[in-house]
Amino acid sequence: MKIGVLYGPVQEDLALVEATFESLKQVDYAPLAGMLELVLAGGGKLLRPALTLLSGRFGEYDLDLLVPLATSVELLHTASLVHDDVIDSAATRRGRPTANSAFDNTATVMLGDYMFAHAADQVARTGNIRVIRLFSQTLMMMTKGEIGQDLTAYDSRQTVRDYLQRIGGKTASLFATACEGGGIVAQESEEWVEALRSYGYNFGMAFQIVDDILDFTGDEAEMGKPVGSDLMQGTLTLPSLLLMERYPRDNPVQKFFARPRKELLAQAVEMVRESDIPQESYEMARSFCARAHEALSVLPDDPARQALYNLTDYVLERRS
Amino acid sequence: MKIGVLYGPVQEDLALVEATFESLKQVDYAPLAGMLELVLAGGGKLLRPALTLLSGRFGEYDLDLLVPLATSVELLHTASLVHDDVIDSAATRRGRPTANSAFDNTATVMLGDYMFAHAADQVARTGNIRVIRLFSQTLMMMTKGEIGQDLTAYDSRQTVRDYLQRIGGKTASLFATACEGGGIVAQESEEWVEALRSYGYNFGMAFQIVDDILDFTGDEAEMGKPVGSDLMQGTLTLPSLLLMERYPRDNPVQKFFARPRKELLAQAVEMVRESDIPQESYEMARSFCARAHEALSVLPDDPARQALYNLTDYVLERRS
Repeated sequence: MKIGVLYGPVQEDLALVEATFESLKQVDYAPLAGMLELVLAGGGKLLRPALTLLSGRFGEYDLDLLVPLATSVELLHTASLVHDDVIDSAATRRGRPTANSAFDNTATVMLGDYMFAHAADQVARTGNIRVIRLFSQTLMMMTKGEIGQDLTAYDSRQTVRDYLQRIGGKTASLFATACEGGGIVAQESEEWVEALRSYGYNFGMAFQIVDDILDFTGDEAEMGKPVGSDLMQGTLTLPSLLLMERYPRDNPVQKFFARPRKELLAQAVEMVRESDIPQESYEMARSFCARAHEALSVLPDDPARQALYNLTDYVLERRS
Repeated sequence: MKIGVLYGPVQEDLALVEATFESLKQVDYAPLAGMLELVLAGGGKLLRPALTLLSGRFGEYDLDLLVPLATSVELLHTASLVHDDVIDSAATRRGRPTANSAFDNTATVMLGDYMFAHAADQVARTGNIRVIRLFSQTLMMMTKGEIGQDLTAYDSRQTVRDYLQRIGGKTASLFATACEGGGIVAQESEEWVEALRSYGYNFGMAFQIVDDILDFTGDEAEMGKPVGSDLMQGTLTLPSLLLMERYPRDNPVQKFFARPRKELLAQAVEMVRESDIPQESYEMARSFCARAHEALSVLPDDPARQALYNLTDYVLERRS
């Protein structure tokens, strides 16, 4: 099933977000236009913008405000991916060449900054200071999470708790804001806005955990990146942390960190795959989804709520 | 003479901008706090914030709005310097270790992003959507200028006109916004706001041209960076462009770009120093200062205007 169907009542309106992206690519400076063409290539899932629009369905569903907001959310996400590429020198992302493999570091950093500027401009179009400040706070949380990930790379003293805090900043904060922002600009009650924020946060936690499981159990062709790429970059995620917990004295993860060799990485991936660690990790993702569901209970039972509900199932079932 | 004296009626109020910077350093995540301590070390000239405050003196001088605005301008400037350091791997800036020589690329990119987020948050505190959008547009222009500089590095087909366009985006746009933003939040007339913008733009052009002259003629100890560092990074500026214009068939700049050798760089620096190119470049800076002066003519003749006037002299006379 295509994910678009799951977006229910807002599926059609996402075309407006795509159209805004198209318009952002039209710049008078050819080299920049070429770079934007590459990173805003389209065909993405637009999951975060869909959450924003769905969240706006419970109040004044004004597309003049919600489309710029949804565009801003996706730009913030895409810009942070571009900057991620500077960082870890990943050769491919989603099967496409990354910005950094196509341009040099300078241009990649600046391209990300340019996209952040557009994100700021789009959110400003809502004319809503509260939402604008929410966005800047979110970018702070995202970068704090990324700095945490960078500074703890190859450090095996981390705990599952550290991990959850890190992905809360790096990933869940933007999902929370995508939903909260939608509720705010649609002038919904504080109770509903809070419920949407909670939904988004828990949804984002589950989303990242599944991402991290797939990095061990996924299919390289479907994911468009090699299995084990997190460990390769020194990033401990839930599966590798659980593996270390089970074999505290002797495990391939610590050995790999001490002396990076391909065989050790392959061994770590295989040990996770053959254990019940993926199941246990999915259990944790499922519990976040359950909290996301729970948060929805205060909202009226309509197609938008149903779509939000169904999307949590998608997160658990997705393969890439 | 200390530059602070030149800030006239706003000199004391700049302490509030410094205090805001101090408060931004207080974060609960120690590694980030350490990084901020390094890049927000204080002791800077605060030239851009001074321009914002001075520009606000011609209307409602409300420090609750002008201080966040001035802080945002300086943060935008500092964040872009941090990202510059990622780019050119400069080992020192202003004689201090750069962010990038103290941390790795990942952390430096994220630190810059974190500062951009704070810049966005500070400007949002003005509650003024027009100013918020002005800031995001400015960041776009700055990054476009930086991308242009990066993509034309080591390309000797550039002209003085390309150069002026590039520094207009990279540098002058933020000076223009520092002034325009001050006028807007102080609710000044459109005529005055436009005058302040023009002052800031022309001031910024002169400022960057002098910067680029000093890169050839300056004293390494005073500047805290090696002479000829622009050429070293493949960046053509006014003096090197004029040198190429004068010796189109045979000049050390083109030779250096074709085959980077220390002797060629030293030769280019010496040829510029011994020619009248510095004078001719200063002539151009002076003409931008004259336009800045002219722009001030519509503003009331008071200490703030006098300070703005005097600052253009400082730009021409500064040695670092």
